[in-house]
Amino acid sequence: MNTGKVTLVSAGPGDLDLLTFRAAKAIAAADVLLIDDLVNDEITTLKAAHARVIKVGKRGGCKSTPQAFIQRLMRRYALQGRHVVRIKGGDALLFGRAGEEIADLRSAGIDVDIVNGISSGFAAAAGLGVSLTHRDHCQGVIFVTAHLRDGSEPDWEKLAATGMTLAIYMGASRIEGISEALGKTLPVDTPAAVVQWAGTSREKRVCATLGEIAARAASENIASPAVILIGGAIGEGVAQLAARSESMCRLSA
Amino acid sequence: MNTGKVTLVSAGPGDLDLLTFRAAKAIAAADVLLIDDLVNDEITTLKAAHARVIKVGKRGGCKSTPQAFIQRLMRRYALQGRHVVRIKGGDALLFGRAGEEIADLRSAGIDVDIVNGISSGFAAAAGLGVSLTHRDHCQGVIFVTAHLRDGSEPDWEKLAATGMTLAIYMGASRIEGISEALGKTLPVDTPAAVVQWAGTSREKRVCATLGEIAARAASENIASPAVILIGGAIGEGVAQLAARSESMCRLSA
Repeated sequence: MNTGKVTLVSAGPGDLDLLTFRAAKAIAAADVLLIDDLVNDEITTLKAAHARVIKVGKRGGCKSTPQAFIQRLMRRYALQGRHVVRIKGGDALLFGRAGEEIADLRSAGIDVDIVNGISSGFAAAAGLGVSLTHRDHCQGVIFVTAHLRDGSEPDWEKLAATGMTLAIYMGASRIEGISEALGKTLPVDTPAAVVQWAGTSREKRVCATLGEIAARAASENIASPAVILIGGAIGEGVAQLAARSESMCRLSA
Repeated sequence: MNTGKVTLVSAGPGDLDLLTFRAAKAIAAADVLLIDDLVNDEITTLKAAHARVIKVGKRGGCKSTPQAFIQRLMRRYALQGRHVVRIKGGDALLFGRAGEEIADLRSAGIDVDIVNGISSGFAAAAGLGVSLTHRDHCQGVIFVTAHLRDGSEPDWEKLAATGMTLAIYMGASRIEGISEALGKTLPVDTPAAVVQWAGTSREKRVCATLGEIAARAASENIASPAVILIGGAIGEGVAQLAARSESMCRLSA
């Protein structure tokens, strides 16, 4: 029996419209689909009739399927000769344990292909109508997770010192501490936004200054999954939206 | 006459397969297409029969269409009631003057929609088979342009000090200076890669250490358009590719 293969497919932010053609083709070609947490359930409408669907993440306080178990499943099906498609939200190569999964599969002699997708930071910026890197404001953007393996925090001071736009993932629950830490280096009137469910029909956004973003996010009940965007480039959109009097996203300073 | 609108559409790295469905729909709905430099010509196969195509970038030593002229064209057609689709390579919200174009159009009362796409840094990582943010190595990734408005350089020392993976755009022609500057902070054996035409059939890549990447890129004739990736996370792929004896991408240290 020939060894199968695994394709890591990036599902983007959620709306099927934001999938790439290559992602849709990979899903249609799968024998087994392992679908991650936060991926839109409608994605299974793209699969072949015979393909088996396994959900490997649970929301709502339940424990997620352990990583080791997911990796065992992928190995098992691939070694049975199946084409396994592992679907991850956003882009699989940004904050998704893909590195560990690729290493594990390759060590078992299993080929791994990767299909890119739209990460939520990009979708959030599109919703706000801003460039992540408006050249009047910065030379680039940092994508950073607030959720570190050992429970510690990223070095916010060093990140702020770069002058780049910050796109902070998995930080909604600790936005108060993050904005306080960043406020030691960045002016408190630095533009900021939090976008929940970016790139989906449920998208919800709050814009404010760095000094006020935590309180505003709390009062609007913005929770995970959300991306926090901070920097002058983000303010371009805020000012524009304010000028067009979209109350959802007005500079509260 | 009603005012038209402008949709900024991200074409991704080049292969039409890496377009999103939303991008393809926007292109099909356009009356006028303004197509940027580096975008795959085949994209016009997706347009409506009546749609007019205007190329607004030239390669091969010619001067690009001036930004102000592009903005005037978009305004003119939109104010004539047309649906203008402006197609940019990669993701329009990363290093593409989108911020300026959005501001200009909105100041003229023209609605602007944005459709995301795959940026070349993501495509480069997919080709290398690496996560941009393997959690054994880093907490995130910095996308930075080496080509600053005023001819200066980004503060490489500060960027290196963050410990993040670096994805450096528009740096191929000055890779020697960049790797030298980063080498003042990062170990010279930090894994590095340069990927030209990432995400296209022409993709070409070189992997080495930070200390040797410039010489290797030169000996393999890697030139613009290319993205430079630097950091421990990138080495995961290099080691794996080396183990599978893909000579194209072997750690030369």
